[in-house]
Amino acid sequence: MHLLSVDDLSPADIDTLFRLSDGFLEVASRPIKKVPTLRGRTQINMFFEASTRTLTSFELAGKRLSADVVNIKASGSSVSKGESLKDTILTLESYRPDIIVMRHHQVGACRMAARYTTARVVNAGDGAGEHPTQCLLDLYSLRRTYGRLEGLKVAIVGDVLRSRVARSNVFGFRKMGIDVRLVGPPTLIPPGIEHWGVPVYHDLEALDEVDVVYVLRMQLERAKGKVPPVPSLREYSRLWGLSPRRLRPDQRVMHPGPINRGVEITGDLADSDRSLILHQVESGLAVRMAILYHVLAPHPQAA
Amino acid sequence: MHLLSVDDLSPADIDTLFRLSDGFLEVASRPIKKVPTLRGRTQINMFFEASTRTLTSFELAGKRLSADVVNIKASGSSVSKGESLKDTILTLESYRPDIIVMRHHQVGACRMAARYTTARVVNAGDGAGEHPTQCLLDLYSLRRTYGRLEGLKVAIVGDVLRSRVARSNVFGFRKMGIDVRLVGPPTLIPPGIEHWGVPVYHDLEALDEVDVVYVLRMQLERAKGKVPPVPSLREYSRLWGLSPRRLRPDQRVMHPGPINRGVEITGDLADSDRSLILHQVESGLAVRMAILYHVLAPHPQAA
Amino acid sequence: MHLLSVDDLSPADIDTLFRLSDGFLEVASRPIKKVPTLRGRTQINMFFEASTRTLTSFELAGKRLSADVVNIKASGSSVSKGESLKDTILTLESYRPDIIVMRHHQVGACRMAARYTTARVVNAGDGAGEHPTQCLLDLYSLRRTYGRLEGLKVAIVGDVLRSRVARSNVFGFRKMGIDVRLVGPPTLIPPGIEHWGVPVYHDLEALDEVDVVYVLRMQLERAKGKVPPVPSLREYSRLWGLSPRRLRPDQRVMHPGPINRGVEITGDLADSDRSLILHQVESGLAVRMAILYHVLAPHPQAA
Repeated sequence: MHLLSVDDLSPADIDTLFRLSDGFLEVASRPIKKVPTLRGRTQINMFFEASTRTLTSFELAGKRLSADVVNIKASGSSVSKGESLKDTILTLESYRPDIIVMRHHQVGACRMAARYTTARVVNAGDGAGEHPTQCLLDLYSLRRTYGRLEGLKVAIVGDVLRSRVARSNVFGFRKMGIDVRLVGPPTLIPPGIEHWGVPVYHDLEALDEVDVVYVLRMQLERAKGKVPPVPSLREYSRLWGLSPRRLRPDQRVMHPGPINRGVEITGDLADSDRSLILHQVESGLAVRMAILYHVLAPHPQAA
Repeated sequence: MHLLSVDDLSPADIDTLFRLSDGFLEVASRPIKKVPTLRGRTQINMFFEASTRTLTSFELAGKRLSADVVNIKASGSSVSKGESLKDTILTLESYRPDIIVMRHHQVGACRMAARYTTARVVNAGDGAGEHPTQCLLDLYSLRRTYGRLEGLKVAIVGDVLRSRVARSNVFGFRKMGIDVRLVGPPTLIPPGIEHWGVPVYHDLEALDEVDVVYVLRMQLERAKGKVPPVPSLREYSRLWGLSPRRLRPDQRVMHPGPINRGVEITGDLADSDRSLILHQVESGLAVRMAILYHVLAPHPQAA
Repeated sequence: MHLLSVDDLSPADIDTLFRLSDGFLEVASRPIKKVPTLRGRTQINMFFEASTRTLTSFELAGKRLSADVVNIKASGSSVSKGESLKDTILTLESYRPDIIVMRHHQVGACRMAARYTTARVVNAGDGAGEHPTQCLLDLYSLRRTYGRLEGLKVAIVGDVLRSRVARSNVFGFRKMGIDVRLVGPPTLIPPGIEHWGVPVYHDLEALDEVDVVYVLRMQLERAKGKVPPVPSLREYSRLWGLSPRRLRPDQRVMHPGPINRGVEITGDLADSDRSLILHQVESGLAVRMAILYHVLAPHPQAA
């Protein structure tokens, strides 16, 4: 199977992934952080868009599973046409890789790639489309923290407009029974939001009833040359930035990283014991090991 | 031994390489695509010129042989002087690598490097000079397809002027008894071509008598700032581009990649069952595994 | 333990490191250049500043120890703020690496990083601060050459102003009983040099009494946009460049590399049998293997 979208997974699949993740989390705590699970398997990380964090996480995941891992970083320019993407994937296919982990700047690129290869394709982020492994690691982090997902209340706050994380998480969280709401200024909420099936609020008071506040990264780098959707970062931070004062002591805060300290979240909140941010990163490595194992094994067993 | 030029190999050496390649081709079809052949050996891929495809192929070849593989990508600027290349190689030599796979933008750079190291040097392309591993993989792809090389008729078509593949393949193909001809517009045939010892045609009718049409990549990226040797790509494509209509059904087409769809070859020909393009890529990985093994083992045996 | 500064090591620690290095030097001479010492351990090479030579040396050192090695090259811009460095290290820490080898353009960055991780941090050069592994490999190269360190006389010559190597080596050499002097034009000697505790000479005659001349690299690339401290490279070379005529036959020359041939040292001196330059590179790989082993093992034993 591929992992192109959270929609590819049933709640039972996700449960299976998380049981596998528990095992791999334990591996990361050992002095010898390596298992022979994927020895002799070939994992190609094909990144058409820079992402040090996600690439490092997948590279470590593959190496700790003993796979042979090859990173390919493509400049956007040399592969900007759909046909070139097809040729790139067909070429990789000729090497008989077992897994292609792919990030691309265009929505649907990973799904297109999956048509041209017998390898398992794992979507590591496709444009403004989806980022299913982020959603899964966030779910796993929540499950580790609360012991359950069903019935949790989560508010996703901020730059929904330019966030593939928001999209994947809304659908993935709801699938697992989480009560999700979106919160942000109207200019950062995309048109057509009514089809997402979750309530939208334009006031931080909407955070009062939730267990977890999931703060989105302000996509500063995607604003170049366009009219920015917020008048100034200073004003955004003042009106929408999350600080310890905005939250109750029992509420937790999450963020997909990397954080803009002082913009969408204050440093003291990010560093506080109410923050799950580093817990998410740790969860991510375990979940990605589980995903690499799972896509190759139709009937997964605990590691 | 080094592999600097196809001239370094006798037909018997090439036969030996291809028997080794048969073994490694079989390895690529297994679930565990890895053999311990080069465990503990150090392979340095020293690329002074970008080449994702060739680098990936050599990196995978080394890793599947269990070598320790280190990639070094040098910007052309920091190593533009001959003395700097010497110092770079002497520094690498101090690490006692077993193999240095090297691509460089200057003709003869790999041969110079070989003077300063006890490692085996494999030429992965030196400027407009040679590209011996491309020639060997093309020969291997032909041998797999036709069961023989002696007596095959091949036309090499297009941008001969700026192609190191053309040069290596003309000499390597002839060495193995292939009947080679060059075909292209006069402006894309280099001066001194009469010394290559093969007939040159300026008309696509010269394709009628061959078994295989080997289409060269139009080197668009090497034309910057120079007067281009063809008036327009559109016209080039109309006059010299290969399409299914130009070929008989029993003729095969090859290309060193990456292809410019719609320029030197149409997409439907590249994707047809008459195309060996992906077969070449697959052959390349097996041949490169065989080469890495062969340069270290004076009396090679089957893997 | 971390390795942030040569000050972190006692002379006895350094002796221990060099005994370990002897063992690893022998490993590099074997056909199978690999030991299982760090199998399953994770080494992250976090380079915020380009350094092909140092990175390659650490990457090979880790791979020959069987560690899982991941390279991260950060552009200076994305991590220019102190807070970002903190977040980067905290994120890495969530992967539970065993060792972080770090190069950074700011003095003290490695020491700051060490506060946020349970991994061992190895300073691979921090701005104009320190470069302890360079100092250790230089000491090891001297010990291999002379059989002792105590009582040796070394002159460090040239661009002291912009050299972190000068700083680390003055302190490290003195710690091991070497008689050190600095030699160079006044414009290349930093203010406050009197606190370094070594004599400073502005005349190459000061080389007459030493065993070893350690030539610093002229930091051409750090001069951009600033008033250069020397009027011209041609004049610098004429007045301060080292050539075979400047040295007695029994004197040795060292250089941290990469050399600028014809600037601070002539090519014929660098290539002569009086040069330890490649001996230093070879020593460096063995010393770095020893360091990686040593920082993880509080009670090191011979490999």
